[in-house]
Amino acid sequence: MLLCDIGNTTYHFSDDQKSYKKDAKLFDPSSITDEVFYICVNKSVKERLKSLKNWVDLSLYVDMKNYYETMGIDRITACEAVEDGVIVDAGSAVTVDVVKGGRFEGGFIYPGARAMGECYKNISDALGYSFNFELDLDKMPKNSRDAISYGYLKLLYNEVISYGMDIYLTGGDAAEFAKILPAAHIDETLLFKGMKNIMKKANIC
Amino acid sequence: MLLCDIGNTTYHFSDDQKSYKKDAKLFDPSSITDEVFYICVNKSVKERLKSLKNWVDLSLYVDMKNYYETMGIDRITACEAVEDGVIVDAGSAVTVDVVKGGRFEGGFIYPGARAMGECYKNISDALGYSFNFELDLDKMPKNSRDAISYGYLKLLYNEVISYGMDIYLTGGDAAEFAKILPAAHIDETLLFKGMKNIMKKANIC
Repeated sequence: MLLCDIGNTTYHFSDDQKSYKKDAKLFDPSSITDEVFYICVNKSVKERLKSLKNWVDLSLYVDMKNYYETMGIDRITACEAVEDGVIVDAGSAVTVDVVKGGRFEGGFIYPGARAMGECYKNISDALGYSFNFELDLDKMPKNSRDAISYGYLKLLYNEVISYGMDIYLTGGDAAEFAKILPAAHIDETLLFKGMKNIMKKANIC
Repeated sequence: MLLCDIGNTTYHFSDDQKSYKKDAKLFDPSSITDEVFYICVNKSVKERLKSLKNWVDLSLYVDMKNYYETMGIDRITACEAVEDGVIVDAGSAVTVDVVKGGRFEGGFIYPGARAMGECYKNISDALGYSFNFELDLDKMPKNSRDAISYGYLKLLYNEVISYGMDIYLTGGDAAEFAKILPAAHIDETLLFKGMKNIMKKANIC
């Protein structure tokens, strides 16, 4: 069974043996003739896939009653992977979603590291530092780099920890964020698990 | 006595009766012949003021041993106004600084509302909402506008409240942030108080 999670920059495939990525701009989806079950947050790719009958859009099979209409399918799919916990998906945005007893309880959206770095730099060139993920979160900062790193990371840490739940960390920046959330389970296959669960519930596998 | 707090967009004056603002681009500082005690974060204005002998730069009179070298003079001056408390200065950035027993304990820098709004919009047009300052901070969001508002505001709230100290709120966006920090003391004259304290300590008034 071939699964694919399509973001703004990559097609992330998973078959039963391995996972691999293809560039969203270069890859031709019609080059695959097998059936592919996918989720997609990339508008132009989504439009293109509509004409390919072997590409099955899993967003059409989600029971939406627990979610809200404008919620990204990537967040929804991650929630479908977890029974109880907080999911931190660290990519261009950092989405944080809480699931209790298999039910989405709500979540929030925080800027990703790259966007937030740009944000500080746009306020003032004097704030154009890279974030210090090795920051001591128990200590109030006394230098500029730590002052922005604390503003970005400690505030996220506080909130994520406050739920007292298992933390599932995924997304392209998971390894960086694991430094401030060492107790988190890093799971790069979370979305694929969620996709399989959506298929099971919908009886399409 | 004439005091002036100069930011990137305005000269903010205070004499003993009133305070008033002038546009940083249009105002001519040589039009004032009285002695003016000022702080300035605006690089080009600071350069210009060097040649005007009646403009006295208070940053030269600060005892820097409690602060760090690259810390903005506006943050330092706010800290000089407070004996015990957390200062939230909500402008183009939101700076949060902790003072205990008249001593700066550290602080952090968070993006201001305008910069953070742009940041979310740059991640995705789907996140181009204005922040909801009336958000219920006790409830996990289930819509996009609240999801970004919670990400921005609740995380700041958690941290500021965590110190268990009096909160002093100042800066151009103080009224908006007072909605999420209702216990805060709003004080638009905080920097002028700090300036007076710097002058007292340095025996120049």
